[in-house]
Amino acid sequence: MDVSNVRIVIFDTFGTVVNWHESVVQEGEALGRAKGVSIDWHEFANVWREEGYIKVMYEVAQGLRPWEPVDVLHRRKLDELLDVYGLKLTEEETDHFNRLWHRLLPWPDVQEGLRRLKTKYSIGPFSNGDFRLLLNMAKGSGLPWDFILAGQQFQKFKPDPTIYEDAVELLGGRPEEVLMVAAHPSDLDGAHAIGCPTLYVPRPLEYGAVNNHVEPEAKYDHETVADFRELAARLGV
Amino acid sequence: MDVSNVRIVIFDTFGTVVNWHESVVQEGEALGRAKGVSIDWHEFANVWREEGYIKVMYEVAQGLRPWEPVDVLHRRKLDELLDVYGLKLTEEETDHFNRLWHRLLPWPDVQEGLRRLKTKYSIGPFSNGDFRLLLNMAKGSGLPWDFILAGQQFQKFKPDPTIYEDAVELLGGRPEEVLMVAAHPSDLDGAHAIGCPTLYVPRPLEYGAVNNHVEPEAKYDHETVADFRELAARLGV
Repeated sequence: MDVSNVRIVIFDTFGTVVNWHESVVQEGEALGRAKGVSIDWHEFANVWREEGYIKVMYEVAQGLRPWEPVDVLHRRKLDELLDVYGLKLTEEETDHFNRLWHRLLPWPDVQEGLRRLKTKYSIGPFSNGDFRLLLNMAKGSGLPWDFILAGQQFQKFKPDPTIYEDAVELLGGRPEEVLMVAAHPSDLDGAHAIGCPTLYVPRPLEYGAVNNHVEPEAKYDHETVADFRELAARLGV
Repeated sequence: MDVSNVRIVIFDTFGTVVNWHESVVQEGEALGRAKGVSIDWHEFANVWREEGYIKVMYEVAQGLRPWEPVDVLHRRKLDELLDVYGLKLTEEETDHFNRLWHRLLPWPDVQEGLRRLKTKYSIGPFSNGDFRLLLNMAKGSGLPWDFILAGQQFQKFKPDPTIYEDAVELLGGRPEEVLMVAAHPSDLDGAHAIGCPTLYVPRPLEYGAVNNHVEPEAKYDHETVADFRELAARLGV
């Protein structure tokens, strides 16, 4: 793949940049201990993600229901899960726990890789997360973004096929200038379809060590890098 | 003014962060020497700014004409000015000169002030400049933004009174969390009107030492800081 024209690198975020599963488990376990309840937080995390977000996201991306902020989707499912798991929280505690998605922690290779990439490229998340969520995550975890692209800005969710064009247009680039990085083939397919170069970073532990998540297969071939350090090396920094 | 709730600081950019007048003069003088023509670049810079951008910007902000990218506005006026001043350039040279607005240089207090502010606040330009222009400017001049807000994202120009609400909504904040900094009273008025705290940074040399620019008077009182170092101190960093 030719990356000689690349000036801007955009990143899927949940799963690709940050380890949401482990972040939910860690905050959940601390909360469970404080409340004296025993919960399978690995299961809790994956159900929250799959049913609260992934399912809705695909419906929005296909035009079957209107866009809503991710904070709202997370909260709607969280209220259900607290009932199901019998965990009683105040409104303030619930709101704080819901916003753990603003505090997700990066995979261990991310900060070094991004720092190296930033010396030569403009870098930013291109995520379905809300703008403020991505901003809080960046400030909290030291992600050195140059800019933030949120689905919120287009009132769409990836992998809506039109959102990749919207992003490249906002970035003021030709598609070959904008490289998309993701752990999810469908996201890379959307970028590839409009002419962006793509790099696949597998994150086999995204849903934890044991999970039932099935990722849609890629329509196109995507070059693979092992992590963000190898990504930086592939891009010459 | 109470700034205890402030989490995000947004900045008018042309004039407030970067010294566009001097940047145009410097690139213009180098170009004039290369082409063997003598031009009053101080006048050239101010006419380009006032007639090519300011006049159109106010018409767009008042809903009298549709939004267009700033690159397009700059280029339209540049083509006129090259004729008027008898400066002959190739298409490639004209495009490069037009994009000097992507290469504007900051005032000398800016980088230190922003670095200090970034330790505690999320910071970003909130500018009528196009997204890519602001990104290129940041990378070229080492402006350590956390995010970029461009009028392009809303297809509006400040000081359209509705764009300040759009910005605060995208930032996911209450108005009292978002502080607006500008050298232009009308911009501060727009932010103040929706409840944002505001700080005025006078830039008396924005149009050079001698100029005819008349800035609209402020509708509201705005607290003043001398420069970005004093701004950082005012915000406790």
